[in-house]
Amino acid sequence: MVDEVLEKERPQEAVFDASQHPADLAELLEEMSLDAARGSLLSLPLSLAADTYAYLEPETQVGLAKVLARGELAAIVTEMNGDDRADLFNRLTPKQQQALLPGLAQAEREDIRRLAAHEEGTAGAIMTSDYATLTANLTVKDALNKLRREAPDKETIYRTYVIDRERRLIGSVRLQQLILASPKQTIGQVMERETRAVSVGDDQEEVAQAIQKYDMIALPVVDDDGRLVGIVTHDDAMDVLQAEATEDFQKTAMITSMVENIGTASIRLLYQKRVHWLVLLVFANLLSGAGLAFYEDTIAAYVVLVFFLPVLIASGGNAGAQSSTLMVRAMATGDVEMKDWGRMLVRELSVALLLGLTTAIAVSMIGLWRGGFEIALIVAAAMLLIVMAGSLIGMSMPFLLSRFGLDPAVASGPLITSIADIAGVMIYFSIATAFLIG
Amino acid sequence: MVDEVLEKERPQEAVFDASQHPADLAELLEEMSLDAARGSLLSLPLSLAADTYAYLEPETQVGLAKVLARGELAAIVTEMNGDDRADLFNRLTPKQQQALLPGLAQAEREDIRRLAAHEEGTAGAIMTSDYATLTANLTVKDALNKLRREAPDKETIYRTYVIDRERRLIGSVRLQQLILASPKQTIGQVMERETRAVSVGDDQEEVAQAIQKYDMIALPVVDDDGRLVGIVTHDDAMDVLQAEATEDFQKTAMITSMVENIGTASIRLLYQKRVHWLVLLVFANLLSGAGLAFYEDTIAAYVVLVFFLPVLIASGGNAGAQSSTLMVRAMATGDVEMKDWGRMLVRELSVALLLGLTTAIAVSMIGLWRGGFEIALIVAAAMLLIVMAGSLIGMSMPFLLSRFGLDPAVASGPLITSIADIAGVMIYFSIATAFLIG
Repeated sequence: MVDEVLEKERPQEAVFDASQHPADLAELLEEMSLDAARGSLLSLPLSLAADTYAYLEPETQVGLAKVLARGELAAIVTEMNGDDRADLFNRLTPKQQQALLPGLAQAEREDIRRLAAHEEGTAGAIMTSDYATLTANLTVKDALNKLRREAPDKETIYRTYVIDRERRLIGSVRLQQLILASPKQTIGQVMERETRAVSVGDDQEEVAQAIQKYDMIALPVVDDDGRLVGIVTHDDAMDVLQAEATEDFQKTAMITSMVENIGTASIRLLYQKRVHWLVLLVFANLLSGAGLAFYEDTIAAYVVLVFFLPVLIASGGNAGAQSSTLMVRAMATGDVEMKDWGRMLVRELSVALLLGLTTAIAVSMIGLWRGGFEIALIVAAAMLLIVMAGSLIGMSMPFLLSRFGLDPAVASGPLITSIADIAGVMIYFSIATAFLIG
Repeated sequence: MVDEVLEKERPQEAVFDASQHPADLAELLEEMSLDAARGSLLSLPLSLAADTYAYLEPETQVGLAKVLARGELAAIVTEMNGDDRADLFNRLTPKQQQALLPGLAQAEREDIRRLAAHEEGTAGAIMTSDYATLTANLTVKDALNKLRREAPDKETIYRTYVIDRERRLIGSVRLQQLILASPKQTIGQVMERETRAVSVGDDQEEVAQAIQKYDMIALPVVDDDGRLVGIVTHDDAMDVLQAEATEDFQKTAMITSMVENIGTASIRLLYQKRVHWLVLLVFANLLSGAGLAFYEDTIAAYVVLVFFLPVLIASGGNAGAQSSTLMVRAMATGDVEMKDWGRMLVRELSVALLLGLTTAIAVSMIGLWRGGFEIALIVAAAMLLIVMAGSLIGMSMPFLLSRFGLDPAVASGPLITSIADIAGVMIYFSIATAFLIG
């Protein structure tokens, strides 16, 4: 639908020329061979080429870095935004890095070194150095003139940060406020003194959540001494939140580490990311078989019990998947925290009891029809306990993993299902054995 | 971590006063009784009270609307942004709506009527009417003066939209460009003519994705005649993407419709959203039992086969959950589209074959130990076919659902597991019966 409107204005959407948005140009490049992509990229004006290069997938960036001449790559890299440049640098091989650095000016080299040093997943790793600063003693008129000169190089001048002599962040001012103020006022008079900031080592997800919560365009980043070292912009925050959601999604299905774009991932990569957990779960699920072996006599005497095995263990797993998914997402968005565990457990108990009773009634009717009164009673009792156990395990596991510093996302899906399976087998056959044999 | 830095600057984070951000004030109000919340809200300056009210959870907004006097509510609603006001209006009961309208000025009443009319989930439903417009014949100087006058009422003046006499969108101009341009130039000379826009009926998720893709601050919304009717801002786009991710997450676990905040949801609500699918899946899983019943003779003769049942059906479900989750998320983020189905299927076949072989080897060792050569062979062959079947079902189901206009998200998790269970039982026992009995 978006495309329809865009097409009205841009009849030749697929043409590779300078009238297109860099995000679209990057998509077109992705479909070309590396050599063709190199030629197309170099046909663009330098600043657009740099923006387009920044929008490419990481693998394409590295591939193109190989086929571009040193001087070509250096020219593009010089034009890139600070954060994109540092990200690219971290992706190159040490040999490529060494080849690139001499082609850059001193300022860009230092900028790369500063930004690339931050640990992945921190505010430092996603911040940019392309922000504008002002000092408190400037007049509004001088400040506007400074911004006019610097504007083309900065990611955003909608909010400018005010620093003291030691580069400590002391306030901020919106462009809107500058054009509203009298030209003779000083920045110190018009700036907002309370400026939210994050530390360079803060978790990128928390930073992105803060930008979302407070509806900000950018959030300044300070070092341990309160000195301004960068800003995180709203568009990067959006990308972080989307990537974290994708990662959580994939983790719930026991995929080892994030597949960035499944459309372009190789067979080998997909196999590697899936096989570990799949094999591990084979051994976990053999425990259910061992549980069954323990009740061999009961099964041999009452084969009818086996018919209800799939539905009982599946229901426990399904209830567990519901509970854990609700909890995992609520923890990811910050709706639920560690301290809420007790309160959530009490409520989950009530919900699980109701769900257990409902499913027990549903299955007992089939039990009555297929196996008679005794079997119906056993199956219903097992269903009640298995659904309750599944729900409580599903609810608790994300907290438990989080408590031990692990990612709660792996708690939903196959892991819960496997644990619920084992619990289901044990509950079902211990009840059946007690009723029918003991 | 974010909190730590904020605390340095705001020692009394939990105090309810006008120095706090409205998002934080709203969180404090959520924890109060309605009467206390009313008092606290009214203690704030009107414009801050309106912003805070807009940040409240929908249920709290409706609750407060009941305890606020008509005049108080009308004053707050008048100060709210157009989109927040329309959202609130849609949440009120018809009686509350009728009580509120007479307290508002004509302009706000019409604004509500215009915005509230759009269908939920469309660009129209999330757009705001608080944007600034210019005409092409204005000089830059006059334009800046107009923006100075209007700025306080607009959500963003960082990008202003240029319209013709019929309010048709003909271009846009960034505040940055205005302050860089000579005061005597006309807007027609400095504006960007190619302005991306979406239609009022476009899907909100696609609109949000466009804002993310092109790193925009806002996206203008036009009606069928190309007339500008609103803008969608980056912060609302971020909220849409996060809410859609949460909804998809919950759907994968077969939760009927989105639970907005699980921390505050009632037991009754949680039960209702979970019970339908859980009971439906009970009946689906009984099919697996029926499958087992069909092979009763084989089972009675070879009870050892039952021990491998849980691991075989669980592995099919796990492989299916991996495939479907990867596919569902890739479709949600736009990495994979309907037309990619054939290509993805071919690749999935290779990945599934490798995964099937690996898990077959793993389980055959246990088969050899527990049941001898013949059982090991049967179990390994069953594992290979079941994992492949699970993967292919998991990969295809999201496309299939999408093809029939259903949400692909329900395809991952319990639904796939249940289908894989049935397939697993049939594959396993038909192989076993052919080998051992037939």
